Amino acid sequence: MKVVIAPDSFKGTIGSAEICEIVEKSIHKGMPDAQVLKMPIADGGEGMVDAYLASSGGQKARLRVTGPNFTAEDACYGILPDGTTAVIEMAAASGIMLASEPKRPMAATSYGTGQLVMDAIGRGCRKIILGIGGSATMDGGAGMAGAMGVAFLNENGGEIPLTPNGLRKLCSIDTAHVDKRVYGVEFLIASDVQNVLCGENGAARVFGRQKGADEAQVKEADGILKRLAEVICAQTGRDLSQVKGTGAAGGLALPLLAFFGAKLVSGIDLMLDMVGFEQKIGDADMVVTGEGMLDGQSMEGKVVIGVARRAKACGVPVVALVGDIGKNYERAYGQGVSAVFSTNKAAVPFEIAKRTSREDLALLADSLFAFADIVRKKGR
Amino acid sequence: MKVVIAPDSFKGTIGSAEICEIVEKSIHKGMPDAQVLKMPIADGGEGMVDAYLASSGGQKARLRVTGPNFTAEDACYGILPDGTTAVIEMAAASGIMLASEPKRPMAATSYGTGQLVMDAIGRGCRKIILGIGGSATMDGGAGMAGAMGVAFLNENGGEIPLTPNGLRKLCSIDTAHVDKRVYGVEFLIASDVQNVLCGENGAARVFGRQKGADEAQVKEADGILKRLAEVICAQTGRDLSQVKGTGAAGGLALPLLAFFGAKLVSGIDLMLDMVGFEQKIGDADMVVTGEGMLDGQSMEGKVVIGVARRAKACGVPVVALVGDIGKNYERAYGQGVSAVFSTNKAAVPFEIAKRTSREDLALLADSLFAFADIVRKKGR
Repeated sequence: MKVVIAPDSFKGTIGSAEICEIVEKSIHKGMPDAQVLKMPIADGGEGMVDAYLASSGGQKARLRVTGPNFTAEDACYGILPDGTTAVIEMAAASGIMLASEPKRPMAATSYGTGQLVMDAIGRGCRKIILGIGGSATMDGGAGMAGAMGVAFLNENGGEIPLTPNGLRKLCSIDTAHVDKRVYGVEFLIASDVQNVLCGENGAARVFGRQKGADEAQVKEADGILKRLAEVICAQTGRDLSQVKGTGAAGGLALPLLAFFGAKLVSGIDLMLDMVGFEQKIGDADMVVTGEGMLDGQSMEGKVVIGVARRAKACGVPVVALVGDIGKNYERAYGQGVSAVFSTNKAAVPFEIAKRTSREDLALLADSLFAFADIVRKKGR
Repeated sequence: MKVVIAPDSFKGTIGSAEICEIVEKSIHKGMPDAQVLKMPIADGGEGMVDAYLASSGGQKARLRVTGPNFTAEDACYGILPDGTTAVIEMAAASGIMLASEPKRPMAATSYGTGQLVMDAIGRGCRKIILGIGGSATMDGGAGMAGAMGVAFLNENGGEIPLTPNGLRKLCSIDTAHVDKRVYGVEFLIASDVQNVLCGENGAARVFGRQKGADEAQVKEADGILKRLAEVICAQTGRDLSQVKGTGAAGGLALPLLAFFGAKLVSGIDLMLDMVGFEQKIGDADMVVTGEGMLDGQSMEGKVVIGVARRAKACGVPVVALVGDIGKNYERAYGQGVSAVFSTNKAAVPFEIAKRTSREDLALLADSLFAFADIVRKKGR
């Protein structure tokens, strides 16, 4: 029997590489002769760098950057073995976990993300995979673009602060001083968000509250992003405000799309392509995947469903080990998931359950593959 | 593949017969060709009557009895198809769920249990299986014995109330007026409790608080039970105070042992003997058992471990589906349990989890036997 372990991280508790280790141990305990292939997976969110490095090899680059509220932060990203592909998580430089308290999203910048991008380019990277989950910012990517040499100007031609507050005075954008090396770089923006930039389903209205914006700030930020798109449209002739995915990460993709030919891609499909998923599962008897929560939202391009859809196309059954099983999880059955198990072992709130997340996953996986061995042997 | 489903009830949520139905459906979904044998099990606790009737057939007898606090209660017990064996749960007449609030254990009587016993004898039963879990009482079985014709007397030869309060004045016991039919009856007291009658590990000190006794009442009840054992010893020559199991159900077994030749037996072993467990699992590939909580206490003669020990002796592997997995559950592995799964699907407290207990069990069992089918087919 061959089992491929291809999980996402469990958000806030266990990384995907460690999940692979835990499940592998259980498989070897229950079925010592089973063949196991570990393949940590990520969409554009938390754990993407670690997942790529674990799957493909490569190393981490570290540098000090400007955090979302202008504090200095130590951040890192990954460079794959080819030496020319960088994998960057926006959250490492501009993430919500780095935001000061109380949150000040109108004064938050994505500048640090641009520093990571420029560092990678400086080291010779020509392809940048940018995961944009978990951001603290709604600056329409102005901070990031600023770090790449793009100037955001007021009506007097003076540079404005690269935050929503600063963008109130935006009049024009100047790309004359962008480092020429940037133009030779392929940018792939990995995301599972389908929202457009502005309006009811836009960056500010859908994600602003979780970044700390109050109702008035949400409304103002929405207008600021609309204005940014208008300025870009006036200068480039392209209206990006209705492009799906521009609503992710406070509009971060906007300048990358407008000036640098970036592509918005499905984070999970990009990763599965990179690791050669179909080829690796071709002779497998099952794929074990997982994520922190399986619910209706999981259908929108998250790891479990992304893995399941492509495994289904190969005729390989999928088993999901997840933290919580939430509303509308049943929709996973139609997408190639045959069985779903929760790691919860007792009726206690998450604050208590998370303390034992590793041993709870091991308990579940141990039992599952002990059970598999019983079935396989038909008892005796 | 043949699967035997032999679970306890999940205390407070699902009865054992219904658990069998739910799991059977899942097995048929995942492995339509599997052979399933349903065998609801109980120790001496909640659900024992239903489990016996579901396994053996038979019918329920109903009558109105005196509850623990002297209210009228509608109770029932089971009569097996032989017409001469009754299965009685003490809790049906004298259970903690029937106690008035605030609890008054010093004024609580087991009289109603005696009424069930006498009703069964009146209907011709000659063997009585008495499950004594979940009692509200600590009257040393005086109430029950009173209903069977035993008189408890004060120093003036007057009858005393059949409660701990009444027993303060106990001076002697008179069995002269016991219905003669009682002496031809075989009494089997089914319990998983090993406690002795008095002292540190006695009925009052260990179980008194959960029946509502305060510290002073616990101490007094302990003395009252000691005194009852002394009176019995003086009249019969038998000191029952150190017999294991007499500490169950507030000393209920005491008069049955002293005057009616009762035997204290393991509830789970009695049931497994009655249903011919070994014979029925002989050709099975696995036994699926379960209970509401699997923890260190489960080792003390509860259903999962009772089933597992005997299945292990037959070389049949055991899988446990349980509500919560608690402390020291690992000890189950040494007793024949190969795999343990919790029905909890999310990190929420019991008050919320219990609302979906049936669908959660179905979700777990569906996934488990879908997984089994994958393993069995080795994928494709």
